[in-house]
Amino acid sequence: MKIAFIGLGNMGLPMALNLLKAGHLVTGFDLVKSQLDLFTAAGGAIAPDLKTAAKDAEVLISMLPASKHVEGLYLGEEGLLANTNPKTLLIDCSTISPKVAQAVATKAKAKGFAMIDAPVSGGTAGAQAGTLTFMVGGDASDVERAHPLLEKMGKNIFHAGASGAGQTVKVCNNMILGIQMLGTSEALRLGIANGIDPKVLSDIISKSSGRNWALELYNPCPGVMENVPSSKGYAGGFGVDLMLKDLGLAVENAEGLGASVPLGELAKQLYETHSKAGNGQLDFSSVFNLK
Amino acid sequence: MKIAFIGLGNMGLPMALNLLKAGHLVTGFDLVKSQLDLFTAAGGAIAPDLKTAAKDAEVLISMLPASKHVEGLYLGEEGLLANTNPKTLLIDCSTISPKVAQAVATKAKAKGFAMIDAPVSGGTAGAQAGTLTFMVGGDASDVERAHPLLEKMGKNIFHAGASGAGQTVKVCNNMILGIQMLGTSEALRLGIANGIDPKVLSDIISKSSGRNWALELYNPCPGVMENVPSSKGYAGGFGVDLMLKDLGLAVENAEGLGASVPLGELAKQLYETHSKAGNGQLDFSSVFNLK
Repeated sequence: MKIAFIGLGNMGLPMALNLLKAGHLVTGFDLVKSQLDLFTAAGGAIAPDLKTAAKDAEVLISMLPASKHVEGLYLGEEGLLANTNPKTLLIDCSTISPKVAQAVATKAKAKGFAMIDAPVSGGTAGAQAGTLTFMVGGDASDVERAHPLLEKMGKNIFHAGASGAGQTVKVCNNMILGIQMLGTSEALRLGIANGIDPKVLSDIISKSSGRNWALELYNPCPGVMENVPSSKGYAGGFGVDLMLKDLGLAVENAEGLGASVPLGELAKQLYETHSKAGNGQLDFSSVFNLK
Repeated sequence: MKIAFIGLGNMGLPMALNLLKAGHLVTGFDLVKSQLDLFTAAGGAIAPDLKTAAKDAEVLISMLPASKHVEGLYLGEEGLLANTNPKTLLIDCSTISPKVAQAVATKAKAKGFAMIDAPVSGGTAGAQAGTLTFMVGGDASDVERAHPLLEKMGKNIFHAGASGAGQTVKVCNNMILGIQMLGTSEALRLGIANGIDPKVLSDIISKSSGRNWALELYNPCPGVMENVPSSKGYAGGFGVDLMLKDLGLAVENAEGLGASVPLGELAKQLYETHSKAGNGQLDFSSVFNLK
């Protein structure tokens, strides 16, 4: 299958490489030359501009940093919607505002395109291993069309609902994740202050009603688990600034709809404080050290 | 074995009945006559006062509402430490302040008693079914001595560390639980505001990094799961006021030790607001309705 892949960053590049490995013809585009070099070295084709990259593509996948980049890519006179064959299936894997995802998909449909939002979780390790989780919004028939490709990049593919639903589920999931990482950190610090071994504490809570993904699989206290960022100086993993971005999307989305997210708001403030103290690039479990 | 059981309330009565069923000789004491009647109707013996209840007991178990009741029971001239044979193993199953548990155990030891703190989770249903979880603090040899009895009342028995450690683990566990119930509620409400089916949202997050006990086994959104309080008008289960009490213990304990628990503090405020609005007796998952 002929695929255009827009955005070959830390996530996009390994995703595009997995499509290449699966035997697809992938033409990549990015603004950063070093990323393009990595892609061509692995056998990928590149295009001099967006229009050329999208030309003849049966499927176009985008993986960009934020809402404004996605709007810039698809909308306007120079955007893809105005310059691409509407038979191209559009898959946006960026994590952006649910409202923006809905708006772009609505405009795409008006021009005859099929478009789905398919944000991912699993980080760069999941992108490399092809084990990402896709949370997908869009028409069932379009999701089905995308499925064989998503399978090459991910392990779990969830159809959440109509356009924007993928973004909503990701925002909701990551808001819980950000909150429970903070709550778990507070409880572990409190246990330690009381003289309890954090490993014993984690083991017991993992079998009790306080159990959650952060505690069980991504423990924020150094030394409790091997092979997690907390035991490697909080390197790698999912950055504080990425969690901050997702909590920003959650709070913004909630404000727009009049939904109440007090813990989400406090979590956002705490990750912001932690980021401003110079920890933005560390894994988000480093909030364990925010005292 | 001869057991004295002090405090035959909603939790203590079914726990004492499970010891009776296991063939032990249990003498109960409570200030509420109707509870004593229920106990004698099931074959339990009762005593006219504390001293008589504790006399000749090999093991004394207490299950009282709060720190002040435990201090009142054990300490002072009229207390059990001054009026009981020090060969009696003391097991306090009340949920109280870790500091108070440590202080009472220290005084008990000074008088030659063995004492453990063994707070439970699992609620009245777990107490009736004999499936409670015990979080135990104290010397290993004393915990071992208590084990055959705890097994008759519970399914999981965790030795957390020295005296007070059982209380600390319970406080830490319930603080995470209170926080993740609120965070999960915020995320589900946000999803619903975006038009997502809360069952689909819960299913996806249950397989993702936002998963936690509250979402998976005790979903706060009515209709998502059967046989949980949210689908029965938030009746039964673990009351808002009990969660509020435990969050109070957590925040108080943290303040005393200079530990930072910002989400724990906000959670306490939110359950307090919810309780003051008249919901104190509802299950704690009813915070789903706090907007």
